[in-house]
Amino acid sequence: MACQTTTLPRDKSEKATTGNFFEDFTIGMVIGHATPRTLTNADQALYTALYGSRFALQSSAEFARHMGHTQAPLDDLLVFHVIFGKSVPDISLNALANLGYANCRFIKPVYSGDTLTAQSTVIGLKPNSNGKTGVVYVETTGKNQRDETVLSFNRWVMVKKRDEAASTKEHSPAPMPKVVSTNELGLAIPHFGPVHWNSTLSGSEYLLGDYHVGERINHIDGATVQEAEHQMATRLYQNTARVHFDAHYTANSRFGRPLIYGGHVISIARAQSFNGLANACNITAINGGRHIAPLFAGDTVYSWSEIIDSTRLKNRDEIGALRIRTIATKNRSCEDFPYKDQEGKYDEGVILELDYWATIPT
Amino acid sequence: MACQTTTLPRDKSEKATTGNFFEDFTIGMVIGHATPRTLTNADQALYTALYGSRFALQSSAEFARHMGHTQAPLDDLLVFHVIFGKSVPDISLNALANLGYANCRFIKPVYSGDTLTAQSTVIGLKPNSNGKTGVVYVETTGKNQRDETVLSFNRWVMVKKRDEAASTKEHSPAPMPKVVSTNELGLAIPHFGPVHWNSTLSGSEYLLGDYHVGERINHIDGATVQEAEHQMATRLYQNTARVHFDAHYTANSRFGRPLIYGGHVISIARAQSFNGLANACNITAINGGRHIAPLFAGDTVYSWSEIIDSTRLKNRDEIGALRIRTIATKNRSCEDFPYKDQEGKYDEGVILELDYWATIPT
Amino acid sequence: MACQTTTLPRDKSEKATTGNFFEDFTIGMVIGHATPRTLTNADQALYTALYGSRFALQSSAEFARHMGHTQAPLDDLLVFHVIFGKSVPDISLNALANLGYANCRFIKPVYSGDTLTAQSTVIGLKPNSNGKTGVVYVETTGKNQRDETVLSFNRWVMVKKRDEAASTKEHSPAPMPKVVSTNELGLAIPHFGPVHWNSTLSGSEYLLGDYHVGERINHIDGATVQEAEHQMATRLYQNTARVHFDAHYTANSRFGRPLIYGGHVISIARAQSFNGLANACNITAINGGRHIAPLFAGDTVYSWSEIIDSTRLKNRDEIGALRIRTIATKNRSCEDFPYKDQEGKYDEGVILELDYWATIPT
Repeated sequence: MACQTTTLPRDKSEKATTGNFFEDFTIGMVIGHATPRTLTNADQALYTALYGSRFALQSSAEFARHMGHTQAPLDDLLVFHVIFGKSVPDISLNALANLGYANCRFIKPVYSGDTLTAQSTVIGLKPNSNGKTGVVYVETTGKNQRDETVLSFNRWVMVKKRDEAASTKEHSPAPMPKVVSTNELGLAIPHFGPVHWNSTLSGSEYLLGDYHVGERINHIDGATVQEAEHQMATRLYQNTARVHFDAHYTANSRFGRPLIYGGHVISIARAQSFNGLANACNITAINGGRHIAPLFAGDTVYSWSEIIDSTRLKNRDEIGALRIRTIATKNRSCEDFPYKDQEGKYDEGVILELDYWATIPT
Repeated sequence: MACQTTTLPRDKSEKATTGNFFEDFTIGMVIGHATPRTLTNADQALYTALYGSRFALQSSAEFARHMGHTQAPLDDLLVFHVIFGKSVPDISLNALANLGYANCRFIKPVYSGDTLTAQSTVIGLKPNSNGKTGVVYVETTGKNQRDETVLSFNRWVMVKKRDEAASTKEHSPAPMPKVVSTNELGLAIPHFGPVHWNSTLSGSEYLLGDYHVGERINHIDGATVQEAEHQMATRLYQNTARVHFDAHYTANSRFGRPLIYGGHVISIARAQSFNGLANACNITAINGGRHIAPLFAGDTVYSWSEIIDSTRLKNRDEIGALRIRTIATKNRSCEDFPYKDQEGKYDEGVILELDYWATIPT
Repeated sequence: MACQTTTLPRDKSEKATTGNFFEDFTIGMVIGHATPRTLTNADQALYTALYGSRFALQSSAEFARHMGHTQAPLDDLLVFHVIFGKSVPDISLNALANLGYANCRFIKPVYSGDTLTAQSTVIGLKPNSNGKTGVVYVETTGKNQRDETVLSFNRWVMVKKRDEAASTKEHSPAPMPKVVSTNELGLAIPHFGPVHWNSTLSGSEYLLGDYHVGERINHIDGATVQEAEHQMATRLYQNTARVHFDAHYTANSRFGRPLIYGGHVISIARAQSFNGLANACNITAINGGRHIAPLFAGDTVYSWSEIIDSTRLKNRDEIGALRIRTIATKNRSCEDFPYKDQEGKYDEGVILELDYWATIPT
């Protein structure tokens, strides 16, 4: 077991870590994250209990075998949350805001029994003019026990400085692609040849060609989030961000109570999207995500999606991809497709805008 | 993967489904339900965490092997809830009431790794005189990956009409057996020959002959239900009935808040019944079930049981069956065995009457 | 399946048990507890979701293999809670207080697939002078399916008498060792030879020699406990103590609401201790534990630890042990290391004092 990556220097006198501050980061720094994690079908069962996801591929080993897998793959977002969670203690423990993510690609399927590790490379640093904070841009990758990269994504967060007087010379915001290239889609989807698609089991007869750009789908169902649910989810991902778990501490914060992990909202909306997108059973890339407003326990999440692109994939006859914008709201039905007004201001109640590619049989 | 069953016609312009209405059903119609589900010991662990069930057979692989299984079978009610849940989007999304179930038979054991699918046949249709609703009678069956039926039950639900003017000519309520025949009991229980019953591990020394008809058992323990618990349970079963999950929507409903899935109450009462019925470790049939009153988060469930029949089984020396009536209450102890008054009206606090057969060693 | 242990006589007319009262116990009595339990990685996943534990050893099969295991061992406290839970229906259902535990030794690792059973021997009985209660001292052991003892601990509880007039002659408090001998440490830890410790994956570079006696570590993070969480945890352990689950019954009790299982607090504090003690990845013995004040849903738990001893282990070059005192508080940060005042009175907010040995690489 060799130490493969550079760890941040820590003061030997302080054994408990309080996370890195803006001036602790340097461009090119590679940070290996703690706690490898063997995921199993137990994590998938918990994921089902937390979100009620109904995509046949992740729910059934038999269905997955028909699609070229050896067993049911774990949910893409479960993998995302676990890798994201590992990066939190090193990257965003002192973040004031998660500004966004981009260029997220799902590269290999993850199965029950796989062990994941994560590392992040600092790819950009931009001090803010207030002298108190700066933006840290990282590329985070997740690997399996065969050292294969299963997932890679960029994110940028606003991080506090420990010492406002610390000099922070670098000024290199990292450029972020607006959309993941179609050449990078479908990498984690095995070839499964020409099969008659079982629309009964999958829950829908709508395939790639049945969706048209501009089409909008209200996912109808609402999910009222409980404190115990988002806490269990976020701990399952071993995410340690204090604001999600500590009502005593957050009582004096801006919101006065624990804030729900943004990824929890994404998973709720994605599970809801089964109703209308049942055959879009893999997230293959996330082009961008933005959390417009915070979610709290007791709020009810609704969602709707718009098809914003549709494409065939190179050398893949059996699947194509839909580019989907999913909007989630709180305490407001999505029957009227709330989004932005003419000036670009988000409508009341909108909490999430997610832009992603999902594969779907042709 | 051939499409094995008839699906209901859906409007191509509306990709999200809002479920079937009364006039969408016809007698003899076979509806294959979406989302096959591979159940594992993770689902059983979650079931334990949700209900605290302590029957040795489902808890211990070693104990199960002594009873002729290759591994611990999954809890009968877990299997029931999963099959029931699959039928919800097609059968009861527009139901105003679950009127009852009957003729439920557990036919094959289900083990970790088995994949279940469900389908329903419409066996009766009875329009109500108000012209707004009708009763739909279905037979729902669950099958494993070898196409073996593991479970079959009938239920009838009051379903809204989409269009009150729609003509509904059929008038065929399906007859329901009052009790499952003793010939159909014990089918999912392997033969396990003459063993000395380990009453220490099972938690009770009382076997078939120790129970007498008319005997009443107070199960003592109470369970206060939390919103997060019933939601996680009901999502684990991939049940999509909106009333269980959406506090924003139900705020304007009759009850003003989310309603707990009736099957959650059954599982609570069954887990409580361990205290007094520890060796009645398999539900082999459910003769009938009725939800008398709704349950909400914050309520405390208690239960008691009466032995209403006791029988040996054909060609089975090692097990017999008890017919048990279990009554559950809310916010009222069952010390005084609440049930009905002389006029047949249920006592205050009674929420469930369940009539089932459980196998028990002789 | 032979009955291996003596069960308490029960009245055949009362099939539901209300637990044993003080006068039901006799010194030397051996009580086999009900419901063997096959633990799997699903229980570990739930444990992670409930506490957010991040120790690499229990989280990763790969990491565990580097440390001489065949797979990831289940968390020590998960095993403790399951064995403890089995003893509750027989030992402490009528307890007014859990007075303490001691001499707890983790003897064999427990892996996914192992089946645990528990039994207790009554080792002391001390009637209280009020004639209403007495103290029962037991040694409880947990065994796996190979009849190997995996865990042994003593506890003593104050139990009500059923009949205050019952004579209770015995008066033999059992002596309890203050600390588990270093000869009994590390028994469940496989030899894993000289490896380069991966401090990146483990989350810390601090090994045995980096800690000094008297060192204090604030674990920083807080955990606000929800009713659904502690109930799910305590049911996962099949612990039946009524006070944890029944808000209707406890409404009239001393505290007016459900009380959280003390072991839940221990698990929260232990998970928090990762931040500062990440390499102390096995609890090998618990010298003593005391619950100073009750915890309720909505309270936030914080914790800190002091190193109170440090030792090499006989014939073990690769690991040593730290003796750790962990203090948990509610609704009070541990920045100022709250403990006791000069007169030995616990500081406001302190709810737990736990004294244990953890192994840590050298």
